[in-house]
Amino acid sequence: MMTLPTICWQNGYVKLIDQTKLPNKLEFIICRDVKTLWAAIKRLSVRGAPAIGVAAGFGVLLGIKTFKGKDSRKFIQHVNKVCDYLATSRPTAVNLFNALDQMKNVLQRHAGESVENLKQLLKSEALAIYEYDRKVCRAMGDHGAELIKANSRIMTICNAGALATVDYGTALGVMYSAKRLNKKFKVYACETRPLLQGARLTTWELMRAKIDTTLICDSMAAGLMRDQKIDAVFTGADRIAANGDTANKIGTYNLAVLAKFHNIPFYVVAPFSTFDLNISSGKQIPIEQRGSDEVINFRSIQTAPQNVKVFNPAFDVTEAKLISAIVTEQGIIRPPFVKNIKATIKSVKIK
Amino acid sequence: MMTLPTICWQNGYVKLIDQTKLPNKLEFIICRDVKTLWAAIKRLSVRGAPAIGVAAGFGVLLGIKTFKGKDSRKFIQHVNKVCDYLATSRPTAVNLFNALDQMKNVLQRHAGESVENLKQLLKSEALAIYEYDRKVCRAMGDHGAELIKANSRIMTICNAGALATVDYGTALGVMYSAKRLNKKFKVYACETRPLLQGARLTTWELMRAKIDTTLICDSMAAGLMRDQKIDAVFTGADRIAANGDTANKIGTYNLAVLAKFHNIPFYVVAPFSTFDLNISSGKQIPIEQRGSDEVINFRSIQTAPQNVKVFNPAFDVTEAKLISAIVTEQGIIRPPFVKNIKATIKSVKIK
Repeated sequence: MMTLPTICWQNGYVKLIDQTKLPNKLEFIICRDVKTLWAAIKRLSVRGAPAIGVAAGFGVLLGIKTFKGKDSRKFIQHVNKVCDYLATSRPTAVNLFNALDQMKNVLQRHAGESVENLKQLLKSEALAIYEYDRKVCRAMGDHGAELIKANSRIMTICNAGALATVDYGTALGVMYSAKRLNKKFKVYACETRPLLQGARLTTWELMRAKIDTTLICDSMAAGLMRDQKIDAVFTGADRIAANGDTANKIGTYNLAVLAKFHNIPFYVVAPFSTFDLNISSGKQIPIEQRGSDEVINFRSIQTAPQNVKVFNPAFDVTEAKLISAIVTEQGIIRPPFVKNIKATIKSVKIK
Repeated sequence: MMTLPTICWQNGYVKLIDQTKLPNKLEFIICRDVKTLWAAIKRLSVRGAPAIGVAAGFGVLLGIKTFKGKDSRKFIQHVNKVCDYLATSRPTAVNLFNALDQMKNVLQRHAGESVENLKQLLKSEALAIYEYDRKVCRAMGDHGAELIKANSRIMTICNAGALATVDYGTALGVMYSAKRLNKKFKVYACETRPLLQGARLTTWELMRAKIDTTLICDSMAAGLMRDQKIDAVFTGADRIAANGDTANKIGTYNLAVLAKFHNIPFYVVAPFSTFDLNISSGKQIPIEQRGSDEVINFRSIQTAPQNVKVFNPAFDVTEAKLISAIVTEQGIIRPPFVKNIKATIKSVKIK
């Protein structure tokens, strides 16, 4: 839905929208080395699980630019080091690790080939991850659109849109597809404290797409649900365990409990690259803890005593029992999740 | 617990802490006329249902300063006009209207007396409302302290403390009383968007009282409850209907649903002046809608597209069925609330 990609590979560099500046300014960052990209991921200039996956692939390409020589064994060691470094940027979104694994697998499959060839193969792989994201987002959108009924009032949290992917989105991609089908609906965007991705990013891109959007504080969700003003909740995901437990932006579990209490369907929209079938439940998902500054300072303005203790997890885990369905590029997965996730993902080769 | 009152009558003027400046600066506003006080209530320089009640009483005293003459009938008309004006400052907290009624009742009881006498009686009444608040807050605190078990982890929202009353608090008053009894406990303060009364005010006053305090964003409450890190929720109230339905700061209903889902007791702490026995349920409580600026601008910093639609109710209503008990100055009221509220409040003459 975006006319410009959130992140792309351009003239040998990574170009990405600096999302910390939105909605006030649309600015780009050019990453010419892997450290700049690592820092952009860390401080959330680029964020959203699928976009982080794409960034990781491109990050490897930046990392190998500095490798001089013809020794492919040393090259592979170098790539592994680059991957290990990129893996330290953020811990929760599994797309990051899945993309790095995908890059490393290329080398395994082509061990023994020349450094030149391996570089070319890595470039193709990173661009394939990028293109695959564009494709699967549209597929998820089209599958999920059927869940949006006429005149639906939809709630969403954080930004699971074009800005969280290359250019279309997961949860918001469903809305873009519904809009293309001329469905009528409106969206309540939770502002998503502490970093306000809902207020800053989701409203910005939904309004650009001319979708009826109302901004609320996260704490206002319950009242709207009770007053029967919400028909469905759609969120993205940062990691989904084999049983369907889903880590997503802090506050998602909050909404899932409220949706259950008020009998409102709760949908997760995520590509296969967000699934982590190596873990059986959400208890095993590492949750990133971020600094207190994000909560006690608003940019330069202090909003709480400087020395107050702060609890600031970036994500929470929503148990599968609270999730009505998970929309993927292969269709809608419904409970029982353990069985149906296994069946759906096994039936498709993840490129 | 505060060494200085939130609001007081000093040398013929109202002196109040400008709470919009906390925690960065402790500044006072001197209100020399009723308009200045009205504006201070409106923009939340003084806030919290009991403090607004006290402010209303003092507001009448400011309003009558301009009355010259000896005609007590005209004086009463003038006072009624002042009361009507003050009543327009904020719609939800019933303490405002209860205090104004109390002031008007003085005139009814003493109709026919001289203007001089009536002025003196009004002054006594306003000071009585002030003193009564100090007394009932300590009584509520002492009753409620028994609900705080050893090593409790308590969650609260907004500011129901010294800053919401004259100098002790409702929900936080319970904590001050527990602290005085040497109970060990810790508090999680929800920041309370959009105006951050939890971050700005509650942490500030709890830390001054040397109570172990951790600040969280409102959306982090659910995860903490699920992880069994919360033993009880304590909140204040802005208006309580005859059936126990309670209007309080937006986000309170959110917490009440989460507490119910996680099987955590949810306590409301409020004096009789917060009860509105004229209404049978919370559906009849008018909910103040505030401007979009509070949500889309953080002081001077814009955090969402300027033209986005915003839903910004200042309060929500928590149904009585989600409330474990209501702590009042006469003790703890438990369900069934319709019967027990009636019995408790009937048994006491409200001064």
